[in-house]
Amino acid sequence: MNVLSDQLLNMERHDSIFESAVRALPLPVCAAFGDADGVRPVAFAGSGRILGTRDSDKVAASFPNSVRASGNTVLASAGVNRKVPRDRRVAVMFSGGPAAGGHNVVCGLRRALGPNNTLLGVRPGPKGLIRGDLFEITEADTQRVINTGGFDFLGTDRTKIKTDAQFDLVRQTCVRHGLDAIVVIGGDDSNTNAATLAESLFRNVKADGSGVQVIGVPKTIDGDLQIGDLLPISFGFDTATKIYSEMVGNILQDTRSSLKYWHFIKLMGRSASHVTLEVALQTKPAVTLISEEVAEKKQSLAFIVDQIAQAVAVRAGKGIGHGVVLIPEGLIEFIPEMSALITELNEALARHATEFAAVVDAEKAAFVEDTLTPANARLLSSLPAYVVRMLLAERDSHGNLQVSLIPTERLLVDMVKARLGVIDDRIRFAAHCHFLGYEGRCGAPTLFDAAYTYNLGLTAGSLVLDGRTGYMATVTDLDRGGVPRALPLTGLLNIERRHGKDEFVIEKALVRMDSPAMQYLLSRRAAWAGDDLFCSPGPRQLWGQVARQMPISVALNSGAASLEFRIG
Amino acid sequence: MNVLSDQLLNMERHDSIFESAVRALPLPVCAAFGDADGVRPVAFAGSGRILGTRDSDKVAASFPNSVRASGNTVLASAGVNRKVPRDRRVAVMFSGGPAAGGHNVVCGLRRALGPNNTLLGVRPGPKGLIRGDLFEITEADTQRVINTGGFDFLGTDRTKIKTDAQFDLVRQTCVRHGLDAIVVIGGDDSNTNAATLAESLFRNVKADGSGVQVIGVPKTIDGDLQIGDLLPISFGFDTATKIYSEMVGNILQDTRSSLKYWHFIKLMGRSASHVTLEVALQTKPAVTLISEEVAEKKQSLAFIVDQIAQAVAVRAGKGIGHGVVLIPEGLIEFIPEMSALITELNEALARHATEFAAVVDAEKAAFVEDTLTPANARLLSSLPAYVVRMLLAERDSHGNLQVSLIPTERLLVDMVKARLGVIDDRIRFAAHCHFLGYEGRCGAPTLFDAAYTYNLGLTAGSLVLDGRTGYMATVTDLDRGGVPRALPLTGLLNIERRHGKDEFVIEKALVRMDSPAMQYLLSRRAAWAGDDLFCSPGPRQLWGQVARQMPISVALNSGAASLEFRIG
Repeated sequence: MNVLSDQLLNMERHDSIFESAVRALPLPVCAAFGDADGVRPVAFAGSGRILGTRDSDKVAASFPNSVRASGNTVLASAGVNRKVPRDRRVAVMFSGGPAAGGHNVVCGLRRALGPNNTLLGVRPGPKGLIRGDLFEITEADTQRVINTGGFDFLGTDRTKIKTDAQFDLVRQTCVRHGLDAIVVIGGDDSNTNAATLAESLFRNVKADGSGVQVIGVPKTIDGDLQIGDLLPISFGFDTATKIYSEMVGNILQDTRSSLKYWHFIKLMGRSASHVTLEVALQTKPAVTLISEEVAEKKQSLAFIVDQIAQAVAVRAGKGIGHGVVLIPEGLIEFIPEMSALITELNEALARHATEFAAVVDAEKAAFVEDTLTPANARLLSSLPAYVVRMLLAERDSHGNLQVSLIPTERLLVDMVKARLGVIDDRIRFAAHCHFLGYEGRCGAPTLFDAAYTYNLGLTAGSLVLDGRTGYMATVTDLDRGGVPRALPLTGLLNIERRHGKDEFVIEKALVRMDSPAMQYLLSRRAAWAGDDLFCSPGPRQLWGQVARQMPISVALNSGAASLEFRIG
Repeated sequence: MNVLSDQLLNMERHDSIFESAVRALPLPVCAAFGDADGVRPVAFAGSGRILGTRDSDKVAASFPNSVRASGNTVLASAGVNRKVPRDRRVAVMFSGGPAAGGHNVVCGLRRALGPNNTLLGVRPGPKGLIRGDLFEITEADTQRVINTGGFDFLGTDRTKIKTDAQFDLVRQTCVRHGLDAIVVIGGDDSNTNAATLAESLFRNVKADGSGVQVIGVPKTIDGDLQIGDLLPISFGFDTATKIYSEMVGNILQDTRSSLKYWHFIKLMGRSASHVTLEVALQTKPAVTLISEEVAEKKQSLAFIVDQIAQAVAVRAGKGIGHGVVLIPEGLIEFIPEMSALITELNEALARHATEFAAVVDAEKAAFVEDTLTPANARLLSSLPAYVVRMLLAERDSHGNLQVSLIPTERLLVDMVKARLGVIDDRIRFAAHCHFLGYEGRCGAPTLFDAAYTYNLGLTAGSLVLDGRTGYMATVTDLDRGGVPRALPLTGLLNIERRHGKDEFVIEKALVRMDSPAMQYLLSRRAAWAGDDLFCSPGPRQLWGQVARQMPISVALNSGAASLEFRIG
């Protein structure tokens, strides 16, 4: 073995040159926590602000303990906690899809708890909590995972804790491991779960009749867990959108280099179009579809296709035979006619689940058409076979269509091509399709996500040590030093129909048409369609002068003066 | 408009925060050129080394002027050129697919020519040369494009200059623009084109009977233009493989976080597996297919599928339900049975082109089967319909199958799933497919590619000013300061059968089984299959301590002591 071979061997298991270096990156902390060398947990006090939804009364009836304790009041840090308890045992778990920065939440949490309390890792996710698979997280562990991407330190899963049997098993885990608190790092569904757990574990878990605290941490690359200035963005969104933006920027550069292709790029992000909006603001492509706009303007599939085809034609007229179209993952569901179809399909498939499963594949479409209203049956039969197949595919554990399986990008290419044949068949149109998704969830966090999540961990740990339960940790004022706060989970819940019945959920935040970020897109979109005005944001940098950028949409929506974030 | 909106507007047209910053990155130059502040073109002298192939005699007969002038001798820099000519007019063009660093070649070239000579840009590519679309490149232009990705400054195309009419038009362009030299930035085919142009323009182009010099520059992300220590790697390979490696590293991290998916990732790179080998060395996935190994070991499709299925089964036995499989774009062609089929298909489709075009899609397969030998007809009819459709798809301008269109990754997933059903149907196997290609061609160059290409440009400019023609610029000893050299293009040519006839070509360099890089993969592959030993190389950094890495395969194959490159 020569020297280089030895070096390569040493890189195995998370020790690339990059991974070794990022572990040493310093992380800033909010002034409330002191400084990075002398971090101290904070205490909290009510900020006077109360949260609520249209379903607050029903929430109060179903979550009496939590609502009575919090009064649905937003908390803000109120100085260093001078009565930090000892010997607390706190469990932490990831829940749902991974997002960059999760490891730093764990590291911040460990740091806030300090040497006198114990942090236990649950693996993997809610399933691990039910099973009781916990282990103690050491200082060495956190030094190993800090600033690295992914959730692989603990793993994650999507089990929803809902049956009595499951709640009993969780109680057993709490007792067996002597837990005082559980921190749930997850998205809207996982934080709904956290609210339910907080209520269920409020008291009478331990022998002395006391309960187990539950604190949520807002994670999701989709960006659909955001609440104005109280939660500017969920963590992971910045990293994912910067990864996608680099790829889209590279492809834009390719279109103008190769001069012959259109690229239709679908972006992960589930229902909301936050990811697509952010990537558009970062790269300025010719066409950007925003699902919420489609829904609000009641656009039909044919209208959307025609819009894209017209852009292709206009550019072709100027000698520009290339371009990029950004497509949000959830588009199909937001096209009113398609949405009506899917809603009826969701209900029909739930209703006829057993019979449907028994029908052979080739006859599934016909079987389902018979159960639909005539208008929807007609729409379904008018779609290409590969789209019908997808619309009838398996639902996720929430009874929702797995929209990421529908090749919307391919469907649009095929339909745009057909439409161009009608508009002017001399227009040359060659297109490639992409779906950017998994590659954005587990990349190494940007400096923004790394710092934000470390401070979310410090906040979550502080909430535990301050005796709080049923709160979600947040850090606000990200361009002005950062302020640790906490949102009462019950103040975020409302009722939604899922699996054909009412459930408490945290409503997904959608792109608002009147938001500054959306308004900026609208103000520039025609110019971007007419000529190549794109830019390439490049690979995210962890060192040097360009490393400190927050998401453009977050900066616009929060009225920031620049893209530079400032924590500490 | 507030301050932030103005900032965003200023980012349009290649002025992202990143793009503005990279323009100011300093570029090192080989000692032969002086230093970055006082760059001077070098003169060249024969190094005593002579290049040749098995077809050298035929090459000498067809390229008499070039071979007589160069003697097929490799040149090395021989001190500063003390007789730099003035008033030379040099054209530069991109040819073929884009690759990161092309802009820096232009910048280096402009720098070498200095203020007393003129550099003209051809747009786009060979087509622009035929049309005569040239413009003068200014110092301001180079300041604008330096260190940015893509070929968009000039555009590119794939026209092959081969007919007499085309050569005449190129001569007219030379005369009309008073050209003294043409620099062709391209891959193996484009450099073959450069050799032909050099011979054709050797004399009698200008009124005084003199010719026009032609110099090639080695570009391709595929890495298949490399010649041992004389051309360690083509430019663009490092950037593309680092982009793909980040994505693969992110996905690997995702597999161990989500704990439920296999990801089958096909990587661009045409025939050779250099890209796949490099990405495997960077990331250490469970399974890496190398086309050259498949060919050498005469593996069948069924064998390859079984190999992957066994890896899935072994990992499943250890409770690891996830993994990554890397697949080189050209795999199908290297499976001997498939290769035999494709060769016969290529010939048959060329032979029956007109009739084939007339057959309706649904009957194309049957039509072609009738023209094949029985064994190949059987193999074709045994493949899934979507693969057959691809095998019959349009050929590229070189008469080759567009292998990137074949969904090898999907085919393997389907076949592995079927095979697992036979091995043990309790094994859970869920897989996602990816193709990484276009996103890697036009990213901002790594520091390695940025520095390498700037020096290639300085070398190409020096060759022009030293009166050379028919050479390809190269820079060797990339871990020891860098040495500008030149390879006689005629020394690289041999004969290959294309479109059913013999043509001069530069043979694509394939992965050698006995190369140190391949041997390293073989030595670790079983360990990587058995457990998660992957690492994540992260996004490429342009600033800070991890920015100076050369490709691992290049470092291994050149016996470098570390991954750090050193130019200057």
